[in-house]
Amino acid sequence: ISLCTPALVVDVDKVKRNAQRMIERFQKLGVQLRPHMKTHKTLECADIMTGGSRRSIVVSTLAEASFYADHGFDDILYAYCLPFDKVERCASLSERLDLFQVLLDHPDALEQLRKRPLAQAIHAAEGVELTGVYAHCGNTYNCKGVEQIQAVAQETTNLTLQFMEKLKGVGISCKSSIGSTPSCSHPVQDMAQLSEVHPGNYVFYDVQQSLIGSCSLEDVAVRVLTRVIGHCPHRNQLLVDCGWTGLSLDGAGKLPTGYAVIEGHPDLKLLSMTQEHGRVEPISGKLDYSKYPLGSLLTLIPYHACATAMMHPVYHVHSEGRLVGTWTPTRGW
Amino acid sequence: ISLCTPALVVDVDKVKRNAQRMIERFQKLGVQLRPHMKTHKTLECADIMTGGSRRSIVVSTLAEASFYADHGFDDILYAYCLPFDKVERCASLSERLDLFQVLLDHPDALEQLRKRPLAQAIHAAEGVELTGVYAHCGNTYNCKGVEQIQAVAQETTNLTLQFMEKLKGVGISCKSSIGSTPSCSHPVQDMAQLSEVHPGNYVFYDVQQSLIGSCSLEDVAVRVLTRVIGHCPHRNQLLVDCGWTGLSLDGAGKLPTGYAVIEGHPDLKLLSMTQEHGRVEPISGKLDYSKYPLGSLLTLIPYHACATAMMHPVYHVHSEGRLVGTWTPTRGW
Repeated sequence: ISLCTPALVVDVDKVKRNAQRMIERFQKLGVQLRPHMKTHKTLECADIMTGGSRRSIVVSTLAEASFYADHGFDDILYAYCLPFDKVERCASLSERLDLFQVLLDHPDALEQLRKRPLAQAIHAAEGVELTGVYAHCGNTYNCKGVEQIQAVAQETTNLTLQFMEKLKGVGISCKSSIGSTPSCSHPVQDMAQLSEVHPGNYVFYDVQQSLIGSCSLEDVAVRVLTRVIGHCPHRNQLLVDCGWTGLSLDGAGKLPTGYAVIEGHPDLKLLSMTQEHGRVEPISGKLDYSKYPLGSLLTLIPYHACATAMMHPVYHVHSEGRLVGTWTPTRGW
Repeated sequence: ISLCTPALVVDVDKVKRNAQRMIERFQKLGVQLRPHMKTHKTLECADIMTGGSRRSIVVSTLAEASFYADHGFDDILYAYCLPFDKVERCASLSERLDLFQVLLDHPDALEQLRKRPLAQAIHAAEGVELTGVYAHCGNTYNCKGVEQIQAVAQETTNLTLQFMEKLKGVGISCKSSIGSTPSCSHPVQDMAQLSEVHPGNYVFYDVQQSLIGSCSLEDVAVRVLTRVIGHCPHRNQLLVDCGWTGLSLDGAGKLPTGYAVIEGHPDLKLLSMTQEHGRVEPISGKLDYSKYPLGSLLTLIPYHACATAMMHPVYHVHSEGRLVGTWTPTRGW
C-alpha cells in the first residue's frame, strides 16, 4: 500500500457487515436502533449505520449534532446532560430539526431550558416534551464473555423496565433507550420490551470489544498502518512511525502486547510511544531484524477504536485490499 | 467567560514571555535558536517563537512542514529520520524552500534519497549536503530540579562536542543541534559551543515541565476550561465536561491530583475520564457541592501540553482575561 503512515484504515466491508448485523438483530427484536456517531463522526459511516435513512442517531457533541444537521440528518439525540453553556445552540438545533432531543438529569437543567425564550415558546406551543428515559450500561465494559454481558444486559433491562412501570403508575408514558456495544451485540430477549437501543462502537469494534466478548478480532474494521523506521539492536527494539498522535494512549497496561495488537505478530509488543514514534520489542527472545526491514509495514489493531479514530483528521477506506476513498470526521464541541 | 467548554485557552502574554526569554537566553550564548513547532502547530505561535523571522524552525511531521512552507516559512528542519514513504514529499519541499533539512540515521536512508531523480539532481548540482548532527536529550525528562537538568545538559553537550571533534578529525565540519525544553530552559555555559538548539514545549510549558524544574507553574501558558455538569453525592464526585477528547490520557498515574492540576483547587483530583466526561473527587474528605454549582467553571492545567493541544481543533487566545482571537493548528502527517 502506498499510503503515507501512520494511517487509519477502515475496512468498509466489515463496517457494512457490523452495521447490517446490528440492524437485523434489532429488527428481529422489534426495537428501534438509534446508532451512536461518536466513534467515527463521519457522514459515510452514519449512512451505513442508519441504512441510508439519516434518521434516529445519537451524538456526543454539539459539533456532531450541527455537522449531521447540516447534511440532512434528523431525529438527533444529543446524549449529554444539557450543558448550561450550550442551551442556545441546543435551542437553535431544535428549531432547525424536526426532532432534537437533549438529556436532563437535574431540575436546574429544566429551569435553564425554560428560561430561554425559545424554550418558553416551545413550551407554550407544544410543551417541553418528555420523550423517554436514556441509560448506558457502561458496566458491560467490565465483562468477559457473552454470559457476563447478557447478565448485565438483563439486569439493566429489568431495572429500566421496572422504572418505566413506576412512571406509568404516576401517569407518565414514554420511551426507554439503553444499550452499549457489548449488550447490543448479544441482546437478551427482554430487550424486545424496550423502545430503542443506542450502541456506537460496534461499527468499528476493537481489541477491547473482542476481549469483552462483543466480537471476534476478525470483526474489527479499523487498523493503524505504521512503518518500521529504525532498528535499535542495543535495546532489542524496532522504532515505528506511530506515536500517540496516531494511536492514542488508551489501553495502557491492558494488553500483554502493549498499546495494540500487532496483526500477524503475536510475539511483538508495542511497548511505548512518544508523539511520533513507537517502540516495539519481542515479548521474549531476540528480534530477527531481517524480518522487519526499514520501511516495512506493521498493522496495529487498536485497543479502543473511539480513541484511535479521534487522533486522525482523515480515514483511509479500503475494500478487498483496494483503497476506495477517504472519510473526514468532524471534530471539536 | 462565555466560551463553550471544554476549551483550550492560551495566555498569549505568557507565550510571548516564554518565547522572549528563550530567544534572549540563546542570543546571550551566541547559539542559533531553532524552535520546534510540534507542541502548538500554529502560525501565530510560530511567529512569536521565531521573533517574526519565519526562519529556522523544526517540525515533527510533513503536514507541519507543508503548512509552514505554504505560509512563507523557510529553513525548515524535519526532525524525523527520513521515512521511505515520504521521500517524494521531502524532495518536493526541498525544491520549494531555500533550505529544507531531513535527518538520516542509516546508510539505507541515504540510498533512498539518492535513488530519487530529484535527489540525484540535487546531488549532481550541489550534493546532498551534511548540514549537521541532531540530538535530543530526552533523558532530561527524568530530571527533578535544575541541578539534575544541567548535569544532563552538560553530559549531552560534552558527548556532542566530542563527536564533533571526531568528525573534524576525519575532515568533516558541520553544525551541531541539541536541546530539549528542560536543558534549554537552564542551559550550561558549554552549550555556547553548539551551533543551535531546538526546544519546543517551552512556549506553552505544562505541569510535567514544572515538576522537572524547567519552569514554575506560573509560566504555564495553556489551560483547559471545563464546566461542572453533574453532582454525584453517592460517589462523592463531580462530573465535568472534559473527557480524554479535551485533555488526552497523558500523565496517567503521575500526579496526586490525577490527570491534571485543577487551578485553585489543590484538594481536588481529576480521577478518570471517558470520551466526554471527567470525574472529579476530593483528595480527602467530603465534597462541598455548594462550592461547585452546576455550570461553574474549573480550570485544568495540563500534564503534557503537546498531548492536550493535539486534541483541540482550535485554541482560544486571551490577554489579561480578555479573549483576543483563536489559533488554528495543522493536523495529520
